[in-house]
Amino acid sequence: MRIGVLGTGSVGSTLATRFAGLGHDVVMGSRTGGNAAAAAWAEEAGDRGTAGTFADAAAHGEVVVSATAGAHSLEALEAAGRDNLSGKVLVDVANPIADYGPPIRLDPVGDDSLAERIQRTFPEARVVKTLNTVNASVMVDPAAVPGSHDVFMAGDDGDAKATVRSLLQEMGWAAGNIRDLGGISSARGLEMYLVLWLGLAGSLGRYDLNIHVVTP
Amino acid sequence: MRIGVLGTGSVGSTLATRFAGLGHDVVMGSRTGGNAAAAAWAEEAGDRGTAGTFADAAAHGEVVVSATAGAHSLEALEAAGRDNLSGKVLVDVANPIADYGPPIRLDPVGDDSLAERIQRTFPEARVVKTLNTVNASVMVDPAAVPGSHDVFMAGDDGDAKATVRSLLQEMGWAAGNIRDLGGISSARGLEMYLVLWLGLAGSLGRYDLNIHVVTP
Repeated sequence: MRIGVLGTGSVGSTLATRFAGLGHDVVMGSRTGGNAAAAAWAEEAGDRGTAGTFADAAAHGEVVVSATAGAHSLEALEAAGRDNLSGKVLVDVANPIADYGPPIRLDPVGDDSLAERIQRTFPEARVVKTLNTVNASVMVDPAAVPGSHDVFMAGDDGDAKATVRSLLQEMGWAAGNIRDLGGISSARGLEMYLVLWLGLAGSLGRYDLNIHVVTP
Repeated sequence: MRIGVLGTGSVGSTLATRFAGLGHDVVMGSRTGGNAAAAAWAEEAGDRGTAGTFADAAAHGEVVVSATAGAHSLEALEAAGRDNLSGKVLVDVANPIADYGPPIRLDPVGDDSLAERIQRTFPEARVVKTLNTVNASVMVDPAAVPGSHDVFMAGDDGDAKATVRSLLQEMGWAAGNIRDLGGISSARGLEMYLVLWLGLAGSLGRYDLNIHVVTP
């Protein structure tokens, strides 16, 4: 599959590396295109990876992953270009962190979410929120945390969610651990969970953690 | 132990019944004191339970549980009386739901929490946030959900948290499943988690659910 990854930070590069390793054809996009991190990544990725601009990555991808810092997501997506996103599966893995704190501050929070903003701004993209509830190393390798634990999806387009589900399964997420919460507004809970996640990470002294939903 | 429970709804009465069943001496408080639900509860509780006003319950308790709807917590605590709360372990189990929606709306959300508001308003109370992340039936009987799953605490007073931990253990929460997230501001994450919890409940079609935190 052709995948465009927007963002060259640890989340973007970890995802891009994993997708390339799975045999996908990946373009990592950055603001300037001449980004050193993206160039180094492409060098290492070999045949399966290329560096380019946000627009290059979005034009390339059947699936486009929004993996910049959440505060810059809309700006990066504007640079990627409306036409390049139209009809695409747009995977939003970011958290809308306005201030890392402590205390951390999210924006939006409560009655809106980053994922909904993205969907409203790019109504022809098929936005799926996922993976924002775990750190990069767990995103691409759920076995990094032992036992059963879950990843979540929210989005309005069922076909887009099916595509994302399949990518998650390729990365090792078991079907029964991929929980579809419903429409894109369900992203609110996934983004607000970040505050609890950070509290857990702080109290445990580690970031490789996740939650498992348990019912009778 | 003498416990005052503020609130006669399902959370208040479920907790009050459980505390009485464990042998504690419980007063359930309501706004008017002549509340029918509280009277019926006291009738059923027998020796271990009495109905009264918010002030009666707070004056009685070594531990006072704030179990009204979150939107009314501060008002109920004002009625309970500052002097009756001074020095007490004040257990806040409520969620600050401003509008049940859908979509649900919390107030405060983001840069404040109900628990912090309570602590600021009653600086001489020793506030501990806990149990707000599960429904009433799971609060008092964690075995209602099989396997390992967790309950959280946040509060500034270590001794108060030790008292709460002991009450949680009496109700069946294993020591290793009681996770202390730190100071009272950690209540933000616990309260914002409600939105994810509701999304999970909606997608699973049940409220008897909980999460287990998993690490390597």
